[in-house]
Amino acid sequence: MPQVSLSRRLRRTPFSDGVEAAGVKAYTVYNHMLLPTVFESIEADYRHLKDHVQVWDVACERQVELRGPDAGRLMQMLTPRDLRGMLPGQCRYVPIVDETGGMLNDPVAVKLAEDRWWISIADSDLLFWVKGLVQGYRLDVLVDEPDVSPLAIQGPKADELMARVFGNRVRDIRFFKYDMFDFEGRNLVIARSGYSKQGGFEIYVEGGDIGMPLWNALFAAGEDLQVRAGCPNLIERIEAGLLSFGNDMTDDNTPHECGLGRFCDTATAIGCVGRDALLRVAREGPVQQIRAISIAGDPVPGCDRVWPLLAGGKRIGQVTSAAWSPDFRTNVAIGMVRMTHWDAGTEIEVETPEGLRRATVQEQFWL
Amino acid sequence: MPQVSLSRRLRRTPFSDGVEAAGVKAYTVYNHMLLPTVFESIEADYRHLKDHVQVWDVACERQVELRGPDAGRLMQMLTPRDLRGMLPGQCRYVPIVDETGGMLNDPVAVKLAEDRWWISIADSDLLFWVKGLVQGYRLDVLVDEPDVSPLAIQGPKADELMARVFGNRVRDIRFFKYDMFDFEGRNLVIARSGYSKQGGFEIYVEGGDIGMPLWNALFAAGEDLQVRAGCPNLIERIEAGLLSFGNDMTDDNTPHECGLGRFCDTATAIGCVGRDALLRVAREGPVQQIRAISIAGDPVPGCDRVWPLLAGGKRIGQVTSAAWSPDFRTNVAIGMVRMTHWDAGTEIEVETPEGLRRATVQEQFWL
Repeated sequence: MPQVSLSRRLRRTPFSDGVEAAGVKAYTVYNHMLLPTVFESIEADYRHLKDHVQVWDVACERQVELRGPDAGRLMQMLTPRDLRGMLPGQCRYVPIVDETGGMLNDPVAVKLAEDRWWISIADSDLLFWVKGLVQGYRLDVLVDEPDVSPLAIQGPKADELMARVFGNRVRDIRFFKYDMFDFEGRNLVIARSGYSKQGGFEIYVEGGDIGMPLWNALFAAGEDLQVRAGCPNLIERIEAGLLSFGNDMTDDNTPHECGLGRFCDTATAIGCVGRDALLRVAREGPVQQIRAISIAGDPVPGCDRVWPLLAGGKRIGQVTSAAWSPDFRTNVAIGMVRMTHWDAGTEIEVETPEGLRRATVQEQFWL
Repeated sequence: MPQVSLSRRLRRTPFSDGVEAAGVKAYTVYNHMLLPTVFESIEADYRHLKDHVQVWDVACERQVELRGPDAGRLMQMLTPRDLRGMLPGQCRYVPIVDETGGMLNDPVAVKLAEDRWWISIADSDLLFWVKGLVQGYRLDVLVDEPDVSPLAIQGPKADELMARVFGNRVRDIRFFKYDMFDFEGRNLVIARSGYSKQGGFEIYVEGGDIGMPLWNALFAAGEDLQVRAGCPNLIERIEAGLLSFGNDMTDDNTPHECGLGRFCDTATAIGCVGRDALLRVAREGPVQQIRAISIAGDPVPGCDRVWPLLAGGKRIGQVTSAAWSPDFRTNVAIGMVRMTHWDAGTEIEVETPEGLRRATVQEQFWL
């Protein structure tokens, strides 16, 4: 693997000193920011994540903050998910679509108050789309990127570690809800959420200056829990069917193609700029959709580009994420498959850089 | 240096096969795409660039295409540079600003026709800002990212190499003009431009399928010219004062702070969304501005974060790019300096990760 050339443009995070001290071996770049991808090895990190607890620098989940009388209206313009029933204290996964229904991002929206929201974004400059709409529609809302850097605590021992630092009340937070907790006099949003299926929390660290004090407090409190620095794990997230914007979906795709139709209330999401475009696809359904796919044979190489899916020599889709799963003893993959071949059990072929492999459409993801 | 984890999200380019075969050693990520940064070494690449000719994969300079009756109006909304006199066949460096006058990008605009433009962008999703404006203002213009990947030919032998592949007419292209040239039946825009001061061209390769054939044709034609794969060179671009968006300037900065006031016709750029915000700064001038800075002593380490500039122990600016220059036998740097200390010859200090160094504000860049 080639090296990454560091520069200010690939922004460091409030936790980078800790990440480096923990021996990070590889990065990706996400929202113009460094996101660790490997500490010991992807396989060892995976094992540890499933058995213990990890602290993840996911500061690259930058926030787009909306503040002002039109904040709620603007939030609904961005997504086909009906947000009318949403209350402060709640988080929601919200597909963000453009006027054609194409996905621009798939963030988590955090409702702080009736007139204040954070959008915790995937890898695209969503701020630019939001600012353009605000300018064009002359909305009364302030939009910017605040000094907020998420730190994720993930793994089966996450509750125990968090309770030691923030008190037992942290155990009461329900999935995709948040509450406020004190750290060194700072009042922080902590949500039960995160980009793994091993359970855990995301701390919205407001103010970069308390990043390393918090990092150090977590490691000091969790020594006997075998706490380690970790990061979103390629194998675990594929097993769990956690999509990656830019990998498994792009602005070419509708939410329905991505299997996110359950987050689209196209009939009632009045004001969403992509609503008209999605009405038809919501009624008729997409002609291709995300599927779990197993790939036969030895561990596949890294999937750094689209791998065509074939049936009878004809292209019927593509794989965009793949890895060997130690727990399931097969190659797990995420792909987009045409409706002619998307039924569970369908045998197809995938064109990897090392040649054709047999592949099977799965009923569901592995976890 | 840590490695970069490759994935589909960090997009390959039509030239990636050639880049890999040439032995790329490091990448950065730019517009969600791989941009090579090192082949032999930064110093060896620098020497070769100044002596011979290089082929650069700068496909990451993605294009935002504007097409339709409102294309010209939209283009003027984006920039404070007055574009009224601009003709098809011309390119212009255009600061792009938001409603507060903050820099969102610093691309080259290519006017293809009265109703068709390409914006060859730096590292931000400018497409999102443009799409938001189009949606909000209901403009009659189509906006998208076409399959166009720039390939730069840079260095003193660039004219000779290009003439061998495209004919002698290529020598007649003047600076920041373009003309159309045939390659394998495809009609390509070729401009005299590029991110170095060694002279050369940018080929706007339309259609990824001809990427490698063109790459191979250039290498076959230039063997005796010692043509090599190259990339924007950190040392050369600092010597030349070529700013890097995200490194030397961000949306915190106005064009005037970046020394780009000469590209702002604030009085006449009617329709630019940032015009009101820039009127005052255009009249009164900025309070801080980009300067060339030399740093004393041994070669500095890589500048991967802001280095504070100090005078009398007080912060008066920051360095954001720095490298040892073999030709000028000093550390060359780009920084933002407050007006109290921006005069040429002012002695200041810079806080590097290896401690304080003496630094001097220069009259101009080195080239």
